[in-house]
Amino acid sequence: MTLTGNMLIGQHAIPGSREAIRGINPATNAALEPAYHGGTREQVEHACALAWSAFDSYRETPLVARAEFLEAIANEVEALGDELIERAVAETGLPHPRIQGERGRTCQQLRTFARTVRSGEWLDVRVDTPQPQRQPLPRADLRQRQVPLGPVAVFGASNFPLAFSVAGGDTASALAAGCPVIVKAHSAHPGTSELVGRAVARAVKHCGLPDGVFSLLFGSGREVGIALVNDSRIKAVGFTGSRSGGIALCKAAQARPEPIPVYAEMSSINPVYLFPAALQSRSETLAQGFVTSLTQGAGQFCTNPGLVIAVQGPDLARFINTASDLLRHSPAQTMLTPGISNAYETGVGTLAEHAQVVASGLAAEGPNQCQAHLFVTGAQDFLANHRLQSEVFGAASLIVQCTSAEEMHKVTEHLEGQLTATLHLDDHDLEHARALLPTLERKAGRLLVNGWPTGVEVCDAMVHGGPFPATSDSRSTSVGTAAILRFLRPVCYQDFPDSLLPTALQQANPLSLRRLLDGQREA
Amino acid sequence: MTLTGNMLIGQHAIPGSREAIRGINPATNAALEPAYHGGTREQVEHACALAWSAFDSYRETPLVARAEFLEAIANEVEALGDELIERAVAETGLPHPRIQGERGRTCQQLRTFARTVRSGEWLDVRVDTPQPQRQPLPRADLRQRQVPLGPVAVFGASNFPLAFSVAGGDTASALAAGCPVIVKAHSAHPGTSELVGRAVARAVKHCGLPDGVFSLLFGSGREVGIALVNDSRIKAVGFTGSRSGGIALCKAAQARPEPIPVYAEMSSINPVYLFPAALQSRSETLAQGFVTSLTQGAGQFCTNPGLVIAVQGPDLARFINTASDLLRHSPAQTMLTPGISNAYETGVGTLAEHAQVVASGLAAEGPNQCQAHLFVTGAQDFLANHRLQSEVFGAASLIVQCTSAEEMHKVTEHLEGQLTATLHLDDHDLEHARALLPTLERKAGRLLVNGWPTGVEVCDAMVHGGPFPATSDSRSTSVGTAAILRFLRPVCYQDFPDSLLPTALQQANPLSLRRLLDGQREA
Repeated sequence: MTLTGNMLIGQHAIPGSREAIRGINPATNAALEPAYHGGTREQVEHACALAWSAFDSYRETPLVARAEFLEAIANEVEALGDELIERAVAETGLPHPRIQGERGRTCQQLRTFARTVRSGEWLDVRVDTPQPQRQPLPRADLRQRQVPLGPVAVFGASNFPLAFSVAGGDTASALAAGCPVIVKAHSAHPGTSELVGRAVARAVKHCGLPDGVFSLLFGSGREVGIALVNDSRIKAVGFTGSRSGGIALCKAAQARPEPIPVYAEMSSINPVYLFPAALQSRSETLAQGFVTSLTQGAGQFCTNPGLVIAVQGPDLARFINTASDLLRHSPAQTMLTPGISNAYETGVGTLAEHAQVVASGLAAEGPNQCQAHLFVTGAQDFLANHRLQSEVFGAASLIVQCTSAEEMHKVTEHLEGQLTATLHLDDHDLEHARALLPTLERKAGRLLVNGWPTGVEVCDAMVHGGPFPATSDSRSTSVGTAAILRFLRPVCYQDFPDSLLPTALQQANPLSLRRLLDGQREA
Repeated sequence: MTLTGNMLIGQHAIPGSREAIRGINPATNAALEPAYHGGTREQVEHACALAWSAFDSYRETPLVARAEFLEAIANEVEALGDELIERAVAETGLPHPRIQGERGRTCQQLRTFARTVRSGEWLDVRVDTPQPQRQPLPRADLRQRQVPLGPVAVFGASNFPLAFSVAGGDTASALAAGCPVIVKAHSAHPGTSELVGRAVARAVKHCGLPDGVFSLLFGSGREVGIALVNDSRIKAVGFTGSRSGGIALCKAAQARPEPIPVYAEMSSINPVYLFPAALQSRSETLAQGFVTSLTQGAGQFCTNPGLVIAVQGPDLARFINTASDLLRHSPAQTMLTPGISNAYETGVGTLAEHAQVVASGLAAEGPNQCQAHLFVTGAQDFLANHRLQSEVFGAASLIVQCTSAEEMHKVTEHLEGQLTATLHLDDHDLEHARALLPTLERKAGRLLVNGWPTGVEVCDAMVHGGPFPATSDSRSTSVGTAAILRFLRPVCYQDFPDSLLPTALQQANPLSLRRLLDGQREA
């Protein structure tokens, strides 16, 4: 298979004609072939028209057919074999095992959504049977199901070239819901995107679905991205990336004549709480776990532990010492792109102006490498300086030393919204933790005990979301099966003859759904 | 009981000091005592601080206690007796039976949400059990529940002084979700609002809940309303009213440092389709049903049938003739407020400039009366003139005459988002209707067959919502038990010791919830 540099508008490989994008190997700064020219306004328009024309038919595909489509995508991604792995490694600087693992996760994610689609639970079928004799007025026959919103624009992330990109969680959940998808590929991995995009298009063809179910565009966010969000046929947006990028998409979506929902996952520093008893009994183990989580993948995770909160004292000092020793031996790692590397240096520079550096990793030996840094500050300084809670994407973390449990609480109330919050505790810390929980529940989408926030399971109970600015919509998760709920809206059918009802609502319950029937959930 | 003109900040009756608002009897234009002075910025701030202080404790009240609170509100509203009915009649011009019926609906709505709270289904509990042996990585114990967003600002509607006002659907569903509520009373019925507000406050006290669970403010939307939406402690907004009002709140909510969701129900003209066979077999019956629905309550319903779409010909002509005859005998009815009456006259004037008047009801004989009007236009004119689909709040409707089924389809695609769409059909119309359904599902939240859209049942399957501009968020309903879902967000608990988990997630399942356990719904 040879990369072509083409976009995919339905089944058609079409070259863009705007500014060229090339993948760059961040380990060498070498530009990779081929060039990917950005899409024109007309090409965006064409992809939207095609998606719109596919919507009414795709959204009524039988659940089994839609599930098989998601499985076919997984099969096609796997069939790309080593070419995908090699290209993704070259475009991201991530090591082979990480990319192989991410491919596994991506395909498992698609198959998990296939299982979810088959179950039909997300249709949330509710039936209220008629009461013709009711006084003073009879009750009609009322039935509710969820329907998909419409074509969805997906913006892939830089840091997961497979799992949060062309066939990643946003795409999988939108397709599962019955929404056609147009992906704006992340410019950091265009070759990976082309390969996966072609895999999706093959699955569309193999399953006999309409062309417009999937398109893949290249180009800049400001040009192709905003044109997509402004198109009246796009009805929702999925995005993983920077706070500024996410907010720009939200603003564009709100300024439309018909505003649409944007699910932007943006920025989180993922506070980690070290409670006194845990810190006393195992500060070294905690330090090891912390440094491993902090430096994994050069810290390029949305859930990277960028903030540690604890009460000062000898136990915390021991934690800091151990972590510092480990960090000083931690090798610099290639970051995803030159831009991300530059932003990391800037962010670290800002932290260094306002907090004390206590340890740094080994210095960079090649281009775009991330040297890890650990900072420390006092709670009063943290409370007084909003810049100290800006996300620095990479292996940097800030320890906030508090003078008391009350001050830990105050720091917590001061935090912006987060994807995660982690509690390290022993039995003696339980009451302390319990007192903090209500605040943490208001601040974060996922709370962990005695673990590390990096590593986000794809399952029913996962929440990868949280209050602003962690995401633009705290009511949702972008990972796990509940992600499908983002792309649905309810429709009620009143007094419909059975033959005119959608299958899911027909009297005989042909899909064997567990309906909410006259207030009771069916067994 | 004597009206005081005071606001309620928690249990405290406090007078405002800004511009005075008085209820006006629209049947006489007489101003009613007492004056209600608008709240100051400090009073808004005080109410928000109190709501915030109540949130963490209120949201963890046992489900049974919260359900009993909703039932206590219903009891207290009923205990207001005739004073409530008389005041609401005086402030709205609505007839006694209508207000009595609305009180019944309001109390039933509160009791329905009590039942919903008890069931706990809305907690959407998901449990993925740990897999410590899994390769390459173990799976953690992951549990998800829904938690309330935080204090909610509710803006009551003019047209339902009880069911969509102080203790109406927005308040009931937010309280059911675990959110404290601050109501900004509609200035058209301050006395009714005070009475109901005091009933809610008594229920708060009776149930031993924290003061801040409920407050009631008076004042202008621009002043008190926007101050509320701008307060960082308000986490969601419920609104029923005009398109301009709803959009202003959405803009304010999006401009906050932390944007929040606004559920605004704004504007809908509720298209009614008369299919050929139905029109042929029963045009007179349809005309009777139509005029009854159109003129009920002076047409002051969100779901009023403001648009009729049919293919021209002798059957439609018969429908128009019958409807015109009926309308000509329809008495003028007092509208809710002088402002609404003026807006109706303006809207009717605009329609008269762009469409043909075919019939008008009896002329007004008193102040603020609504004279019904029926207009007709051709499909091409309708398609060419966007003003013809602006909502005219009141008993005015426009018949769009199409030349073919295809043109009906084109008119449908041209429509903005709607709360409802109604299909009148016989067996011979089924294929015609089926072809139109995908478009209607994209356009409206509720689809009816052979009924009339006025009359919105409070039940599990109801959708009172729809694509913009019918509402600001098509993913939601403001009527029916699914309205509770608007005020919730998911939180995931990873590897929590059982004693630290919220009751709903504990291993023993003490609330007997039907959890999604390892992908299977419990029986």
